[in-house]
Amino acid sequence: MAALNFIKQNVRGMRAYSLAPHRARIKLNQNENPWDAPEEIRTETLRRLEKRLWSRYPHFVAQDLHERLAGFTGWMAEGILSGNGSNELIQALLMVSIEPGKRVLISEPTFALYRQITVVLGGEVISAPLTDNLTYDISLLTKQIQAAAPDVTIICSPNNPTGCVIEQADLESILKVSDGLVVIDEAYHEFSGQTVVPLLRQYSNLVVLRTFSKAMAMAALRVGYLLAAPELVSEIRKAILPYNLNTISQTAAEVAIELYESRVQPLVDTIIKERDLLHSQLARIPGLTPVPSQANFILVRSAIEPRTVFAELLRRDILVRDVSGYPMLKAYFRVSIGKADENELLLSALRDIFK
Amino acid sequence: MAALNFIKQNVRGMRAYSLAPHRARIKLNQNENPWDAPEEIRTETLRRLEKRLWSRYPHFVAQDLHERLAGFTGWMAEGILSGNGSNELIQALLMVSIEPGKRVLISEPTFALYRQITVVLGGEVISAPLTDNLTYDISLLTKQIQAAAPDVTIICSPNNPTGCVIEQADLESILKVSDGLVVIDEAYHEFSGQTVVPLLRQYSNLVVLRTFSKAMAMAALRVGYLLAAPELVSEIRKAILPYNLNTISQTAAEVAIELYESRVQPLVDTIIKERDLLHSQLARIPGLTPVPSQANFILVRSAIEPRTVFAELLRRDILVRDVSGYPMLKAYFRVSIGKADENELLLSALRDIFK
Repeated sequence: MAALNFIKQNVRGMRAYSLAPHRARIKLNQNENPWDAPEEIRTETLRRLEKRLWSRYPHFVAQDLHERLAGFTGWMAEGILSGNGSNELIQALLMVSIEPGKRVLISEPTFALYRQITVVLGGEVISAPLTDNLTYDISLLTKQIQAAAPDVTIICSPNNPTGCVIEQADLESILKVSDGLVVIDEAYHEFSGQTVVPLLRQYSNLVVLRTFSKAMAMAALRVGYLLAAPELVSEIRKAILPYNLNTISQTAAEVAIELYESRVQPLVDTIIKERDLLHSQLARIPGLTPVPSQANFILVRSAIEPRTVFAELLRRDILVRDVSGYPMLKAYFRVSIGKADENELLLSALRDIFK
Repeated sequence: MAALNFIKQNVRGMRAYSLAPHRARIKLNQNENPWDAPEEIRTETLRRLEKRLWSRYPHFVAQDLHERLAGFTGWMAEGILSGNGSNELIQALLMVSIEPGKRVLISEPTFALYRQITVVLGGEVISAPLTDNLTYDISLLTKQIQAAAPDVTIICSPNNPTGCVIEQADLESILKVSDGLVVIDEAYHEFSGQTVVPLLRQYSNLVVLRTFSKAMAMAALRVGYLLAAPELVSEIRKAILPYNLNTISQTAAEVAIELYESRVQPLVDTIIKERDLLHSQLARIPGLTPVPSQANFILVRSAIEPRTVFAELLRRDILVRDVSGYPMLKAYFRVSIGKADENELLLSALRDIFK
């Protein structure tokens, strides 16, 4: 088809991000919060929206949300951008910085979208593999930054799908050798008890990404945000589409922040406890080696082929993620932390499969 | 700030799309539907969502919505992509086709975002001005296509902010000389009674954009869609972010299509009648010359400076759009079609200002 000649070669050569549409009663494949958004958050959101016309555009700038996020994060509202999931924000950041001839450094295995967007934009991906222990290889990252001078370095911390974090001292050593932008994707930070947000005051090339899709239990509503120096935010905003965040999601995010401590934090605490319990239980199953995780999922090394484990679990109505296609992870699958009874059922099923 | 050196020069040099946050009782500045989404659509949407968890991601592909859109448009579901507003879809199309060295042809004045995104991506904008009558200059467009061989040509029809349409025969003559992609943005097509969708079967380089923000009365929810050959859609999808359309908006769009004929079409018919009435009344005010429009707004040439008319109307609690900053439109403002009483108040205010 002749029209396809007008699609860029780098795009033609790539595969779209995709997810097979499996279904199961116990869903542990997308690192979602196993509880729903608390009833008070849903009800209060709908109450505030009752009088709001659907026919009218959202606010041009989500000022109310940004002010609440400023209070929540301790960073200034002028340095905050909200988006249709954090995906949109990483895309906007790469759109204003990457074109053919520019370089993006990532540490793989990691979230697939960083590479995907870089390739669409014609940039070059430089990949620093994790260590054999599946942790960040700081000395390699430092060397790559010095050698390749990447325009953007992206580090997911806690990392999806491994669960490792970058320690603050290590991040600082990377920031010190980086002229380019350094992005820390904190999609899972609530489960680690750590954040690099305080470093924003010191490092004007640091960008932090956050999401409402994990701890905040709002994956259905697509809300993410970005924190950076206001001057940098002004530039990234140029690639943000007008009215990018719908009215309902804006309002829901505002309510979720207001009720975070009383309604969401307890769920996060429970997930952390369940994660640590699940980790210790998985470690006792011969044939399985869970990787230490500071997120709401656990990567598991498996003596049985991950594809087989996936299928056997699905047969038992449990959906996990087969990540064996990721670099270094040929022998691994990933499980999200569910509710206590879901984790129990997962453990029984795995004991049965590995018996 | 050193970090700004990592922002592309083309981006540094541009201004962000923006809209001043004026407020007024009568809001005629954003070409919204003056009625809200019909009560039946709102209620049925919320009913269907009652049991849906907010903590779970939307469907990876909005298959249910795409199937309804296929029935609604007469185009195949595999050739449909839905997005977070049509803005996201034009961005995805340009991301997979435009990079430095590539050219986008637009006819200005038009919707500002086409130029904005092209510049962010480092592409070259070629602009074919409208005729002195503010209609599409088909002979100029044809010449530009032959001379510059643009990778993408974008035509907004009906055009924002002028209201002119491209006739089918003219579009066909453009499609015949175009090797590159030809995009028709039909954001306002319901108000013109015309669509180029039937041409999709014949021209595999044709792309049609649609939105739920205008006739569909759902600007708050951000839903748009793109129609094209399935092979082309597969490529454009590579720049679409996973889970780009939130669960609530997906559901609302499905319901709106189901109830379109009974609940939305009557509103559209009323807006068309009101537009034609408003046009004839505006033409009788000395100092004002309304431009013929097939959309839900009217561009008006004004003997008094548009900035002054804008301010005088705002003083009377009526918000319109001062478009005098657009090319060719130094003497113009734009009014959206409101409800009958809103249009009456607009006319009285203008008669007062121009007396």
